[in-house]
Amino acid sequence: MKLWETSDSLSSDKLVEQFTASEDVLLDEQLWAYDILGSLAHSEMLYQIGILSRPERDQVCVALSALMNEEVHVTPADEDIHTKLENMLVELIGDAGKKIHTARSRNDQVLVALRLYTKVWLLEIADLLLALAKECAQFAKRNEGQPMPGYTHTRAAMLSSVGLWASSLSECLLDDLDLLEAAYALVDQNPLGAAAGYGVPLAIDRELTTQLLGFARTQNNTLAVMNSRGKHEFAVLSALSCILLDLNRFASDLILFSAGEYGFFELPPEYCTGSSIMPHKRNPDVLELLRARSARVLSMLTQQAIILKGLTSGYHRDLQETKRPLFDALSTTHASLQILTPLIAGLRVNKKNLDSAITPELFAVDEVLERVQAGVALRDAYRQVKERLNQLKRRDSVKALKARSHAGGPGNLRLPELDQKIAFLQNLWSKRRQGFDEAQTRLLRLGT
Amino acid sequence: MKLWETSDSLSSDKLVEQFTASEDVLLDEQLWAYDILGSLAHSEMLYQIGILSRPERDQVCVALSALMNEEVHVTPADEDIHTKLENMLVELIGDAGKKIHTARSRNDQVLVALRLYTKVWLLEIADLLLALAKECAQFAKRNEGQPMPGYTHTRAAMLSSVGLWASSLSECLLDDLDLLEAAYALVDQNPLGAAAGYGVPLAIDRELTTQLLGFARTQNNTLAVMNSRGKHEFAVLSALSCILLDLNRFASDLILFSAGEYGFFELPPEYCTGSSIMPHKRNPDVLELLRARSARVLSMLTQQAIILKGLTSGYHRDLQETKRPLFDALSTTHASLQILTPLIAGLRVNKKNLDSAITPELFAVDEVLERVQAGVALRDAYRQVKERLNQLKRRDSVKALKARSHAGGPGNLRLPELDQKIAFLQNLWSKRRQGFDEAQTRLLRLGT
Amino acid sequence: MKLWETSDSLSSDKLVEQFTASEDVLLDEQLWAYDILGSLAHSEMLYQIGILSRPERDQVCVALSALMNEEVHVTPADEDIHTKLENMLVELIGDAGKKIHTARSRNDQVLVALRLYTKVWLLEIADLLLALAKECAQFAKRNEGQPMPGYTHTRAAMLSSVGLWASSLSECLLDDLDLLEAAYALVDQNPLGAAAGYGVPLAIDRELTTQLLGFARTQNNTLAVMNSRGKHEFAVLSALSCILLDLNRFASDLILFSAGEYGFFELPPEYCTGSSIMPHKRNPDVLELLRARSARVLSMLTQQAIILKGLTSGYHRDLQETKRPLFDALSTTHASLQILTPLIAGLRVNKKNLDSAITPELFAVDEVLERVQAGVALRDAYRQVKERLNQLKRRDSVKALKARSHAGGPGNLRLPELDQKIAFLQNLWSKRRQGFDEAQTRLLRLGT
Amino acid sequence: MKLWETSDSLSSDKLVEQFTASEDVLLDEQLWAYDILGSLAHSEMLYQIGILSRPERDQVCVALSALMNEEVHVTPADEDIHTKLENMLVELIGDAGKKIHTARSRNDQVLVALRLYTKVWLLEIADLLLALAKECAQFAKRNEGQPMPGYTHTRAAMLSSVGLWASSLSECLLDDLDLLEAAYALVDQNPLGAAAGYGVPLAIDRELTTQLLGFARTQNNTLAVMNSRGKHEFAVLSALSCILLDLNRFASDLILFSAGEYGFFELPPEYCTGSSIMPHKRNPDVLELLRARSARVLSMLTQQAIILKGLTSGYHRDLQETKRPLFDALSTTHASLQILTPLIAGLRVNKKNLDSAITPELFAVDEVLERVQAGVALRDAYRQVKERLNQLKRRDSVKALKARSHAGGPGNLRLPELDQKIAFLQNLWSKRRQGFDEAQTRLLRLGT
Repeated sequence: MKLWETSDSLSSDKLVEQFTASEDVLLDEQLWAYDILGSLAHSEMLYQIGILSRPERDQVCVALSALMNEEVHVTPADEDIHTKLENMLVELIGDAGKKIHTARSRNDQVLVALRLYTKVWLLEIADLLLALAKECAQFAKRNEGQPMPGYTHTRAAMLSSVGLWASSLSECLLDDLDLLEAAYALVDQNPLGAAAGYGVPLAIDRELTTQLLGFARTQNNTLAVMNSRGKHEFAVLSALSCILLDLNRFASDLILFSAGEYGFFELPPEYCTGSSIMPHKRNPDVLELLRARSARVLSMLTQQAIILKGLTSGYHRDLQETKRPLFDALSTTHASLQILTPLIAGLRVNKKNLDSAITPELFAVDEVLERVQAGVALRDAYRQVKERLNQLKRRDSVKALKARSHAGGPGNLRLPELDQKIAFLQNLWSKRRQGFDEAQTRLLRLGT
Repeated sequence: MKLWETSDSLSSDKLVEQFTASEDVLLDEQLWAYDILGSLAHSEMLYQIGILSRPERDQVCVALSALMNEEVHVTPADEDIHTKLENMLVELIGDAGKKIHTARSRNDQVLVALRLYTKVWLLEIADLLLALAKECAQFAKRNEGQPMPGYTHTRAAMLSSVGLWASSLSECLLDDLDLLEAAYALVDQNPLGAAAGYGVPLAIDRELTTQLLGFARTQNNTLAVMNSRGKHEFAVLSALSCILLDLNRFASDLILFSAGEYGFFELPPEYCTGSSIMPHKRNPDVLELLRARSARVLSMLTQQAIILKGLTSGYHRDLQETKRPLFDALSTTHASLQILTPLIAGLRVNKKNLDSAITPELFAVDEVLERVQAGVALRDAYRQVKERLNQLKRRDSVKALKARSHAGGPGNLRLPELDQKIAFLQNLWSKRRQGFDEAQTRLLRLGT
Repeated sequence: MKLWETSDSLSSDKLVEQFTASEDVLLDEQLWAYDILGSLAHSEMLYQIGILSRPERDQVCVALSALMNEEVHVTPADEDIHTKLENMLVELIGDAGKKIHTARSRNDQVLVALRLYTKVWLLEIADLLLALAKECAQFAKRNEGQPMPGYTHTRAAMLSSVGLWASSLSECLLDDLDLLEAAYALVDQNPLGAAAGYGVPLAIDRELTTQLLGFARTQNNTLAVMNSRGKHEFAVLSALSCILLDLNRFASDLILFSAGEYGFFELPPEYCTGSSIMPHKRNPDVLELLRARSARVLSMLTQQAIILKGLTSGYHRDLQETKRPLFDALSTTHASLQILTPLIAGLRVNKKNLDSAITPELFAVDEVLERVQAGVALRDAYRQVKERLNQLKRRDSVKALKARSHAGGPGNLRLPELDQKIAFLQNLWSKRRQGFDEAQTRLLRLGT
Repeated sequence: MKLWETSDSLSSDKLVEQFTASEDVLLDEQLWAYDILGSLAHSEMLYQIGILSRPERDQVCVALSALMNEEVHVTPADEDIHTKLENMLVELIGDAGKKIHTARSRNDQVLVALRLYTKVWLLEIADLLLALAKECAQFAKRNEGQPMPGYTHTRAAMLSSVGLWASSLSECLLDDLDLLEAAYALVDQNPLGAAAGYGVPLAIDRELTTQLLGFARTQNNTLAVMNSRGKHEFAVLSALSCILLDLNRFASDLILFSAGEYGFFELPPEYCTGSSIMPHKRNPDVLELLRARSARVLSMLTQQAIILKGLTSGYHRDLQETKRPLFDALSTTHASLQILTPLIAGLRVNKKNLDSAITPELFAVDEVLERVQAGVALRDAYRQVKERLNQLKRRDSVKALKARSHAGGPGNLRLPELDQKIAFLQNLWSKRRQGFDEAQTRLLRLGT
């Protein structure tokens, strides 16, 4: 085996092929189904405006639907998946295949496939996010009254509860879902018909493809369509980043709270690994990787931005490079949400350690506010307690938790409202998914 | 003058003060008004639940309202603006002032001020964004039929128009506004009552402060409130980044298209500067800085993310550092939107240069599609034209533009729909602004 | 074909395997040879300190050398390449194989393989960088006297030359090489023996493995070794980023200067591609991708930093995620340098267009300085010329270039000194490469 | 006080002034002294080549030296500090002042000031870094034999020592200093004479200014000079980032190890702050801010890169924006190094807590290796110990530490070698500083 594979002997053609396409065709394979859906809608539209005859339209649709089930492998020599699809069509049905690219450009063709692809992933991610939010809410419910120190500055601060901690993640995730929804709405616009960014001198019907593909609306200005490449990706990755930032914090919490010095939780053993040198180790590898994966998605957000910086209007090949960060961030977020839910389901709560971590100083605020209620001004009460810190006493945690009875406090988490909100959102997103599936079914039926 | 100001002689107290507060107090001064608004609402609530007596509440509110008009200067020795405000209150009204901090922590106090501050800036930014979108739409209207080469890969590609180019920015900005709205909605949640993240053992009324401060809703889980510090900022900066990315592209376009080699547009002279060495230069400095400012906002997005990375739940002093990137990104975006609108209003269109840049090859697609309409398959027509590129002829641009008649093409920009949408959004955001102003007025009236 | 591959049915074991290892094992395959080299040195050392007997040492070394030529495929079920190597050893030679991991941890084992891997790539990159610097210097030599407008603010500013432009890249790259050398020196430290970061209770001989592996020195403090994981990668990526930033600028220049509006250069046709819709297009795709690839490397630098942020001392599994950005940035930089050299070799200079771009205003400074030499103060001369801009005349470019005779000016590029410097550096780096190769040969000879 | 300062009424001139200069002039004030030094060298050179007469040269130098001690305030109306300096000169000495800008451009003028400025800061930073490395080495010496758990994956792993931990930071910092030195060498090149990037048609003597200003060498190619703006800054910030990454990790360690759950160290009280609501809190604010400041510097590195992305050769006003991240990163790194040294000097080691954290499992590897030394193969020994984890016993820590006697292990830190290296580097950098100071003195003497 050579330490180093030399490429000195490569011809410039091979060099260029490798430089421009080698990685991209692998990503392209994931777009196969979406390119077919886009092409089905485009063909139907070409038929409706008289470019394809009825028999041509039928030939094309039957062939496309059949190719949907093909296992496809693209090589750099194929240029890309779109050329390959067109070539396969021409091989299968001859002249009608040569017409399919009428009135579209590679640019809007890729865009439509990317948006369908992104929509499917976002639908899945919303689903997994809600499942995780629900799991946390249930974990919170089971441990609603379990006292736990509340930390600020990595130091024990006030009385808190396992319920407050776990349901805080649920609520943060629901905020993230609002951002994801805004990004989804951007992506849910039909780019087809923008061609190379300047439209086409043909009376194409863009509203028809919008409806056929199940997009919420047509993205109007054809140059705005082209200029949104990369920025839409940025918006999506930004919403994913928020999710990952929340998972990163939760993973950081769990790594610390399951360490020997805290011992509040015990991770399910299948989510831990050992050491090659230290027989006693049980390491929280999954959570550590999850933390690091947030760095990956965040850096891909940066990557999108840097790619766009300095580009003028219209398509540039630079934009091809926006694909990989998009694909990677979507699958990384997906895998991260997916693995955390069963981990939380299997998390063991160590009641003993939690209870014994409830020290008197966690009740300093209770002491202060008791004096306030007896009429002492806050600042005076604060000073009085500060001067007698060693006289602080451990209080009844259950009673103290209940006293935090205002909205959102550990004594009043409002979990039923949280459950309701999750259920509402699950319904909403599943309807979106259904709409997407129906459009797909309709399109594939064109080929029967 | 010394080249180097030594700080060797600084005591550790001074060093710490400088390290922790020197920059932060300057930022704090911008929060003065918002801290007073938050404190007014909190005081009214303390009165309603019986912590403040009616006279105390009146004293506090009168004093706070009076301080609103004070010119305030905070020094590191004041610690921060919040301590300064409390100290001034105590000085003015004595014991009642010592009660104001009851049932809140510095953490939720800062959060409420930050959110009000952010809301005001976002309202202003939305306003400026819509003004810019409108200016571009008007510019597009005035130059709707003016032909212009459409570029891909920085090479002349197809016939386009000044109208398409200018209105593409409008549409991109409206997409950004949707993202901004989602970020605004996150920020429009009341954090007050979360205290240090674990609530308080007192029956405070969070819904009351929500209503008094004009927030759309109460952010529930008290730990989720704390954990959203930094992430909300991230969401806001991400929406601002999208705006800046669009401005960056537009500025890049203008820098190029106003260069001698293109000469399509002439920048208003007051937006250009000269050279210290070359008497003939007229440089597009404002646009170049605008381009660079996008780098600033984008890097501040990264900064927010890095600050959060690795932090566990609950407040950490690290989060103080999220203030500057937020403040800076808000004002940078504001200034960038503000300066571009009059620049576009004063932009001169050089019809002669534009017209003479319309070369025959820009009509290659027209030629191809004409053959398609005569029945030739697209791939064959494409090949035929490619073989006779030197026979391509310049066509009638006006007619050719009109032939791009489908939705969003240069022949059908749908500017009236765009105007309508802008007007609708201006109304929507101005109502939001009105709601904010009314809440503020109500609060200040508590002190009369 | 399904649009969506569900993973719902995955067991948690499979989920964890996929989450932790699926991508990593693919990266690992690239470390195979380096893990064997590290293991050879470690085994020899274990023999020298009496842990392995002579026959055991011989068995191990023969087996390792043989495995070097094995085509290896690692699956997530193998855990990683290191476990696979140990298992293969045990299978081949039994008990002696079980001893190989004595006194090392997976942590220092991975580190040593990574550093050897990085060194080889950096040696290659230095080689390619110098080849590119040389190509540019030769191109500069061939076009030393060819006038070209010099631009500031994307506007024609002063007289320049193709020679100045092309050799500026050479000089910038040599600066980058100095940074790369500093990063190389960091990596050129032996980490072996640090074990898990806390050494081992055995009198291992670290200087011996340093010498056997050809490292410049032993990295001393065992915890510093562990804590440099990620930071060394950061330092390497930072140097690579500087290279890419220079390539990015040069690619941006070429894209613009080969556009129709400038027409200074013509790209070799094999580095351009066509359009799916516009038969006349010749797009500079390779240069555009090169520009975008700089975004990739820069974002991976950010990724390294975010991974490290918030981590405490000692190994964390997060650090596994530093591998991919390292590998990717190394190969991206390599490919980018590799493709640019033949592109420049094939670049056609369009003398006619360059000459006709030399307009009178490019000589405004010449006019000013002529007056200065006649005794007028600079500020007055500047004003005089500014008032008579329309009287400026085109001058003899060749003579005017020669007048820029000071060091580094277009009339005195000092290309021979540049050639000499490149030759010196090629010699230096090739000696480094030779040293590396010799160490490798010595190690493999242990197994004969 | 108004919530919102409207700028609606600003004229476009004011808007432009504010947009282009308002922040920049404040930064500029820091360059005053360096602009004077650059101007002194330039004037002397102009005299040597006959542009300035002897009396003019004397006038200029006397005036410049006098202005050095002036307290200067620049406003946007001054344009920038360089214009202000020239205007003040003209006011003071008339016509001779109008000649000072001969044969230079604002571009190389700013560059030379920036490089001198950067050099001074880097000299100071190197000094502070070495002081911190020394403080850590002394702390390590004082606590060389103090056992401490060594952590991996945030879990107790193996026996370590306070000495190993503290001296690991010293060694990491010395690695960083090597990177800083490479960045310093880049900056230590004279840019003066590059003018606007294309030289000047005058026989200026660049080697003379190089020598007068104390630069190590002349940066040759005038366009390379201009194109290094921003990239040099990137290289500097990258070295600073490495320092901050190490401080970030050390701060993270200290925050955790001084928390109640660990209790290994006690922070000096003056580096902690209290809570506005919880009277018992003592928070590690300085360390938390230090951690967050690493995010600031890292994001400024990103900012530099994004600014450069997409720019073509030659100066662009975008580059003005590279100033602030440079200035900020330099002062942030300076302050961070400065505050950590006394903090470590005052750090209390809690021997009792450290000793009682030494649990039996920390000796698992000792147990395994004992069996190995008795002839058991490592893998078998590992398995045996893993099966009897509950039989592990606490060992004599002092003896166990000593057994880690190989280079860099906790039993052999090689602190004397570390001390020597620090002393050597202190000498090296102080010589550099001396050279800089001497050049400055020589230049100021020109004006006497």
